[in-house]
Order: sequence, then structure tokens, then C-alpha cells
Amino acid sequence: MFKKEVYIQRREALKKSLKSGIVLLLGNGEAAVNYAGNDYAFRQDSTFIYYLGLDTPDLAYVLDIDNNKEYLFGDELTMDDIIWMGNLPSLKDRAAEVGISTVLPSADLKKIVGTGLAPAHYLKPYRYRNLLILSELFNCKTEEIVHNYSVELTKAVIKMRLIKSAEEIRELEDAGAIGYAMHLTAMNMCHKGVSEREIAGMIEGLALAHGSRSSFATILSMNGQTLHNHDHSGILHAGRLMLCDAGAENLNHYASDFTRTTAVDGDYSQKQTEIYNIVLKALNDSIALAKPGITYKSVHRNAYKIIFEGLRDLGLMRGETEAALDAGAPALFMPHGLGHAMGLDVHDMEDLGETLVGYDDEITRDTLFGYKSLRFGKRLEPGHVLTVEPGIYFVPQLIEKWEKEKINTEFINFSALKNYLDFGGIRLEDDIIITDKGCRPVYGKRLPVTPEEVKFANTNGTV
Amino acid sequence: MFKKEVYIQRREALKKSLKSGIVLLLGNGEAAVNYAGNDYAFRQDSTFIYYLGLDTPDLAYVLDIDNNKEYLFGDELTMDDIIWMGNLPSLKDRAAEVGISTVLPSADLKKIVGTGLAPAHYLKPYRYRNLLILSELFNCKTEEIVHNYSVELTKAVIKMRLIKSAEEIRELEDAGAIGYAMHLTAMNMCHKGVSEREIAGMIEGLALAHGSRSSFATILSMNGQTLHNHDHSGILHAGRLMLCDAGAENLNHYASDFTRTTAVDGDYSQKQTEIYNIVLKALNDSIALAKPGITYKSVHRNAYKIIFEGLRDLGLMRGETEAALDAGAPALFMPHGLGHAMGLDVHDMEDLGETLVGYDDEITRDTLFGYKSLRFGKRLEPGHVLTVEPGIYFVPQLIEKWEKEKINTEFINFSALKNYLDFGGIRLEDDIIITDKGCRPVYGKRLPVTPEEVKFANTNGTV
Repeated sequence: MFKKEVYIQRREALKKSLKSGIVLLLGNGEAAVNYAGNDYAFRQDSTFIYYLGLDTPDLAYVLDIDNNKEYLFGDELTMDDIIWMGNLPSLKDRAAEVGISTVLPSADLKKIVGTGLAPAHYLKPYRYRNLLILSELFNCKTEEIVHNYSVELTKAVIKMRLIKSAEEIRELEDAGAIGYAMHLTAMNMCHKGVSEREIAGMIEGLALAHGSRSSFATILSMNGQTLHNHDHSGILHAGRLMLCDAGAENLNHYASDFTRTTAVDGDYSQKQTEIYNIVLKALNDSIALAKPGITYKSVHRNAYKIIFEGLRDLGLMRGETEAALDAGAPALFMPHGLGHAMGLDVHDMEDLGETLVGYDDEITRDTLFGYKSLRFGKRLEPGHVLTVEPGIYFVPQLIEKWEKEKINTEFINFSALKNYLDFGGIRLEDDIIITDKGCRPVYGKRLPVTPEEVKFANTNGTV
Repeated sequence: MFKKEVYIQRREALKKSLKSGIVLLLGNGEAAVNYAGNDYAFRQDSTFIYYLGLDTPDLAYVLDIDNNKEYLFGDELTMDDIIWMGNLPSLKDRAAEVGISTVLPSADLKKIVGTGLAPAHYLKPYRYRNLLILSELFNCKTEEIVHNYSVELTKAVIKMRLIKSAEEIRELEDAGAIGYAMHLTAMNMCHKGVSEREIAGMIEGLALAHGSRSSFATILSMNGQTLHNHDHSGILHAGRLMLCDAGAENLNHYASDFTRTTAVDGDYSQKQTEIYNIVLKALNDSIALAKPGITYKSVHRNAYKIIFEGLRDLGLMRGETEAALDAGAPALFMPHGLGHAMGLDVHDMEDLGETLVGYDDEITRDTLFGYKSLRFGKRLEPGHVLTVEPGIYFVPQLIEKWEKEKINTEFINFSALKNYLDFGGIRLEDDIIITDKGCRPVYGKRLPVTPEEVKFANTNGTV
């Protein structure tokens, strides 16, 4: 948690950016695993953390702009609670630590919101609990709640949260340090006969041991070409590549997100090395390009250019570069975006709307396959924190589909691809902060990234 | 997953135990952490697992008893899904593996339930998602949904799930083996200067590495007297006891649940050893008592007896045993129940209602403090799986309250307790299966449990 002034200033800034009305921010509640009381580890809503810093369930915040008042809603511990939970600071004291003097019981929320000036600004809920609370509070159907969220409030929150302050960057560095340890462990465990689940479990244990949790469900698989892959049932065997995409949420809930692709026992074949080095060049060139004033959309296109030219050199693609990029041909090999904003969420503010976060009036989202999956296309500004994560995958089902439907045949050598159908996939991902003149890694120490560095980490552990 | 016949037989038995109507079992959906798509690890509903075995989100099952038909509702993967998720077996094929031949799209659920004979039997929902689905399906308010669940169906499910079959016991043994490894690791890491969070994270990593997850939020703390304690912020220091209550959910979702209390660096003081040995005697005597025909309520009372007499020997309690037990005096030191049923849930079927699971017409729940917290009081039967978890805690807030309100002063030596206010708490917990003649441990190897065994494990690791 930051100093009181941080939260006060954030709420002041929010107030100034909205004209009138009532702002309602709902915190999260507990979420049951298999019965009420056996709950998933509590995660506060990120926007609630950003403006209030309070990390316990069942809170709500109301900012009454017209009357210049603010309220925190929540219930104090009872004597019984204290017996079972120990002496904890009161909600009133905790509220004071973030600059809020008025704390009311949860049951009063309806009274205050009901007497306020309509319309109430609220954010689109992503948990069924909050959807239900809003539906009951405003006495309307859940579909109406989803539909009537405040775009004005959403945009105001995005504008503030997108630019990371110095204290936020320290938290992101901390999350980076945990992610670094997770990936070094994974590289070091990547040996023949070890199960994917064991490695995934151990690195998720590290996230729990040093932070709050993994910032997202770990992807750790010999089948890196399956992009939405959370299966960990494989046993590593020689000749395969282990793609590991994982990160930590630190104790103050900031994220890290790295990907490395380690050859089992560190032995990259010639063929693997060739593809690996194209991805590595796409990563390094993207980082070199990223600076204020450049759009991330153009950095994504440049990554496609490197992938296209690299694969053309290997005889897997063909034709003229700009035409191939215009046609979206490299998307066959990298059907996802180059990266996304990161902060309190690993896909920062994705609950508020991917397009509102990543695009604006100037830079709009593309509709072409591959390009359209880029989450963040905006012109870069100092304080943006982004992932850079190019990849090359050989997805048999997608290759088959394109060949059958004759998509981009002028740019793709389908017959040469027959030798790559069991290749898998390679992705490399670093996290960067846009600075005044360019960008820098979020965490100072870069994970081993060249095949030689990875081999060394695989054999010797920490490097 | 078990063989097809297991699921068919279970559903047949359920059908026979209900007279008529439609049974609706809802599977679980994904649960968002901080935005839709960044989800907590999926956990299927336990009753759904029990009757259907299918472990993916967004399924529903309908048994139409009157027409002797059954339906699975869920959506097949699209071509797009296959590209991102790989070639997975179709829902139709997976349904066939559990003996179901009719699979319909999710959207058809309303049609079938709508045309069926009322009343539909459904279980009380514990997730907001399922509450909303039921509310929309039956077109009624959420309070009505919670109120109108089927007690008949609930009792039928409890009756079946409470008696564990041979194949279920093998799964519970497997979960026990993972829990065993978790606790040995915790014992071995219990040294001065190590953080509680690091130990908790590492053992939760083991649960992820070898099973599905921890079966509940790990309790690991020097403040064992705080019973609802999920804080892991302490750094172990000499002279303290580390209470660790943790278990695993194995890959097929069966639970284990053990508690051990390790002195930091394995050094139990004289005072700690005295209390420890009372708890150990309560544990061992409870296990020796548990057999078919005995009520668990009486085993709980016997544990109170051992605690009372042990503390009387130490001069902390006084008076006549039966009178002290009738008055609930030992509840000051063990304000919780001796144990609970365990199976697919660590508190088995707690979503279906604690009292319906743990009590019946013959054995009813007590109302006295301490006794009333016993989750399971029923007469024991072969196939019951239970935890046995006595403890002695010195809860300053509770001691203060009783002394101030003059509760059970004739049985408690409050002045002697002044020397124990910083003691903390000790709990020891094993898992047992009721057999034909008595009981046996769920997992064959018992965790180190005497102070000497724990000291050895602390110093030498595996024993």
C-alpha cells in the first residue's frame, strides 16, 4: 500500500475529470471454490486497489461529486470475528490510512446511492456477484446493468491507470523479480522425464512464496503451438521445446509476464535455432523501436516484417514484404498481438474494455486476422508499461485451413511447411516501460534469452 | 475419472431414490479473478463430478425421471476453438465415456426444463453464476431460488456421497500422499528466520505440482490460536510453534487435510510439550474410539474429556469431569469441532448444508458453545471418511471474555492462564476411514506426530 496522499490525489484527479453525479466503485467479495467458505484466494478489484488501496472483501466506495463527499461502505468486525480472527485494525482506521473519514455499514449503500443525483457512474462488472449487487441496487435486469455502465468513468480511469507512477514502477519491478526467479527455475528444471505439471507447480509455488499468486494461469507445455493451452499433463522428452509463459502478482498486486522457450536439456536443434533466432530478432527489434510517439500498432507490424523476412530466408514464406504484411500473411505463424498493457492486471484493465484501453480516436483496431488480436495499438507515452511477445507457431489445424481455403498462397510455401507440422511453437516475452526517450526493461536483470544463455541456465541454474 | 459403469450406477441409484420430477445438476463455470478470461483455476462442482465425471466448464445435466431420459447440455468446440486449443475430444465422445448418449446445446436447457414435469429438483447454489442461471431459467428471484432448492434431492445425494467406495478411497489415499509430502516439507522448513509465506507457498506449489491445488486455503502461522487465520506475514522465531493445517486436492479432486504443529527448529519447551501431549492423546484416543455404531458426537465429547483432564492435571482447569463436559468448559480451549466428513470436498458436501450432512433424526446438533461447532455428529458407518483434529488454543480475547462474563469459572483457573496468553495454539489432525470393525488412516504412512518424530523430520527431512 502506498502513502495516504497517493490515494487522495488519485481520487481528486478522478473527481476533476468527471463533471457530476455519483461514482460507485465496488470492491470484490470472496469467490467460492466448491462451497461457501472454501474460497479462492481473495483478489480485490484492481480499480478499487488503485483508488482505495484497501485489500479486504465486501467494500464499496461512493464519490458524490456534486456534494463533494465520499463514503466507504463496509462492516466492522464483531466480537465473534475478533475471537476467531485476532485483533485486526478497524475499518475506520484502515479507511483513515487512505484518507477517508466517513465509513458506513454496507446496508447503507442503497440509501446513499438512492438519494444521490442520477445517473450513477459505475464500471462494467466482471464478477457475477457484483453484477447481482448492482442489479439489486439499481433495481434493474442484469442485461441493463451490463449495458448501462459509464463510458465516461471508464475512460477517466483508463487514462489515469495507463500511465504508471514511480511508486507503481517499483511494484512492477518487484513483480518482475519474482517472475525472473520463476523462469530461471523452469529453465533449470527443463529436463527429459520431468512432468510439465511439476515444473508449473513449483514455479507457481514460488509466486505464492514471494508474492500473492501467479498473475495468470501458467502456460507451460511442449505444445507451444496450442495458444490457449493450460494442459500440464505432458512428460518432457528429448527434441521438444518447452514454452513457458508465466508471471507473478506481487504482494501489492502488480503483475509480471514473461515467456521463454527452452529446449529440453537445453539442446536446441539447428531447425529450432533458426526459428528461435527470428523470434529473438523480432523481440529485440521491437524493444529497440518502442519509444514515445511511435504507435504500438506499427511496432506490431514491424515484428510481422521480421517474421516474414526470416521465414522467407528459410524458404517457408515468399513474395514481397509490404504486400505480405498488407495481406496479413505472417499471422499464420503469429496469430496473436505483439503485446498488451500491464499493471495491476496482467492484461491491464481488460475488464474495462480491451479496445478502450488499447485504442483511441487516432489509432483504431484493425479487422484483419492477426492484426485484430493486438490488444494495445496506441501511440506510446512515457509511463506506459507493455509486454513485447513475438512468436512463431506451426499450428497444424490453421495451416491446413489456410491451405484448403487458399488463403495467402502467394506468400506461403505450404509444401515446405509439411516438415514443420510437429515443430510446436516459440514465444519470447519481455516487459518494458516507455521512458522519455525510448524504453527500458521493467526488471533490470534480463532473463536468459539467447539459446546459449538458456542452455547455460538449464545446466547450471542461476546465471 | 472412473469407468463408465461407476457413473451409470450412481445415476441409476439416484433415480431410484427419487420418486418423480426432473433433476437438474449444474456444473460450474469459470470464475474471473480480475477480468473475464483471467480466471481462477477451474473447479467443477463436486456433485457434478460425482454423477458425471466431466471436468470442463459450462455443462448441465438433466435427469427426467418420469420419462426415464437423461440429457447433457453443453456446446461443442468450434473450428476457432480447435485452432487455439488443439484437437480435443468432442463433448459427445466425452459424454459417451460416462454413459450419456444425448448431448444438447446449452441454449436448449430452457426448452427441456420448461417442458418437463414440475417441480424441478435442484441443489442450493453456492456460486453467484449458478444462482443467476437458475434465477433466469425458472424466472424467479434469487431469494426464491435459494429458498426452493430440493431437500429431497439434497438428502439423496448426501446419502450416496457419504459412503466412500473402494475407487474413491484410492483417490483419497492419493490426495493423502500429496498432503504427506506437503507437511514433511513444512516441518523441514520450520526454522528461525524463515517466513511463513515462503513455507506456505512452497507446500502449495507441491499441491499444484502433484495434484490440482490445495484442498483449502493453507493455515500456516505462529499464531495458531487465531483459528480463522490466513495471514502468512510472520517470520519464524525461536520459542514459537508453527501450526500448519493444509492438504491437497488430487487430480481427480479428492481431498486430504492434515494439521501438525512444529516447534521452530524442532525445540519444544517443557510447557509446549505438556500441552502437545494432551492434544496427541486426544487425537490417538479419538482414532482408537472411532468405529461403526459409535456417534462422532460422543467421540468429540471424549476428546473434550481428555483435554479437560489433561489441563486439570496442569492446574489450568478444575472440578468434576462430567459436570465440566456438560457445561462445555473445555470449549474455551477447543472452540471447534473434532472433525468433519471429507471426500470430493475437504468439508464434504458443505454446500448441501452442514447439518444435513452431519446430523439426522437420531443425532441432532448441540447448541452449546464448542459442541455446536461439530460439523459431523452422526453414528459412524463403514465408508465414512472423517478428519480427527483436536486442539488446545489460548485465545486471549476469548479467555478475557469468559473471565469478564464469569463463564464456567468453577472449572477454569483463570489466574493460572495468565502465563499462557502468549502460548499460541496446538492442533493435530489425521484423516480416517471407518472400516467394518474400527477405522484406519486414509493414507498408510502417518505423518510424524510425536515431538520426537517432528524434531527428527525438522532436522533430517524425510523420515
